[in-house]
Amino acid sequence: MQLLKERILSEGRVEKESILKVDSFLNHQIDVNLFNEIGKEFHKRFHDENITKIVTIEASGIGIACITAQYFNVPVVFAKKAMSKNLDDDLFESKVCSYTKGVDCTIRISKKYIRKSDKILIIDDFLANGNAILGLKEIIDEAGAELVGAGIVIEKGFQKGGTLLRNMGIRVESLAIIDSMENGKIIFR
Amino acid sequence: MQLLKERILSEGRVEKESILKVDSFLNHQIDVNLFNEIGKEFHKRFHDENITKIVTIEASGIGIACITAQYFNVPVVFAKKAMSKNLDDDLFESKVCSYTKGVDCTIRISKKYIRKSDKILIIDDFLANGNAILGLKEIIDEAGAELVGAGIVIEKGFQKGGTLLRNMGIRVESLAIIDSMENGKIIFR
Repeated sequence: MQLLKERILSEGRVEKESILKVDSFLNHQIDVNLFNEIGKEFHKRFHDENITKIVTIEASGIGIACITAQYFNVPVVFAKKAMSKNLDDDLFESKVCSYTKGVDCTIRISKKYIRKSDKILIIDDFLANGNAILGLKEIIDEAGAELVGAGIVIEKGFQKGGTLLRNMGIRVESLAIIDSMENGKIIFR
Repeated sequence: MQLLKERILSEGRVEKESILKVDSFLNHQIDVNLFNEIGKEFHKRFHDENITKIVTIEASGIGIACITAQYFNVPVVFAKKAMSKNLDDDLFESKVCSYTKGVDCTIRISKKYIRKSDKILIIDDFLANGNAILGLKEIIDEAGAELVGAGIVIEKGFQKGGTLLRNMGIRVESLAIIDSMENGKIIFR
């Protein structure tokens, strides 16, 4: 997606430990107009899949998932990372390790909101090692629902997640794949 | 907002400790069509205020803020609760106590994303004791920006937040104010 790549090149900052900061438009400050273009692109790629639900993980995925869901006219469900009084006891759970936060956490989705009949599109901002998607896949499998694919805004192609998921047969559509950030220079696939 | 009140009455569940569960459409599963109606309503109430930015706190506020921001054509900034490699060192910080999670946390916004010239609308899903809004107000004040008001989806009118904030002169627009949930019966103001 050309518009996204241009934005990454003009505003993204490469930092140590393979971190790409895109907090001016993607995951801290949010450019809602760009998100609409992202949502349209995901719809273009998945529109013939009869998606019934978009699933993501709090927090950065929620905005992209909500804007994208407008084009599919389906609800969003976001997995929660913290136990809350707002959550039921009857939950699907899965362990996920966050690359950027460096900690393990348990993600949870109420059993009420993923049904066997659901055809699910996962939406997330980044794909690095694939842990978030694997955690969500575990929950979707447990629910007996169908994982149609994953729509990713930025894939770090030099980390193992993309290859791992595609080798498992998961359809991964990334709008920008970065093959290298060596010496601070961003090279797209 | 009649549509919202009807939805609260039909799907909301009152639980112990003054908890209202609306996780089927507001803060776990998300009804994006309803969010659009909510966004339009916030725009109707604040459209003449020259808002330059919508600010919220992760996670439940993000979806509502993003959908609402489409009507104002402004960016969203969401305060983060966890330190992350994606965050800068140069941050505004504030302490916030979460009513539903029962823990204190520090919220953070990068100094780059709130400017002195900003006219800010805070958007959040719930108003109970007002701590989240007060935490964001502290950050907005420190930045020297202007807090135009707060758009709240559900205000628990029997908790102190609404009165506290309005007595401070903050314009609070709540789309549904619940005055009582005694014996599981929801009474709107």
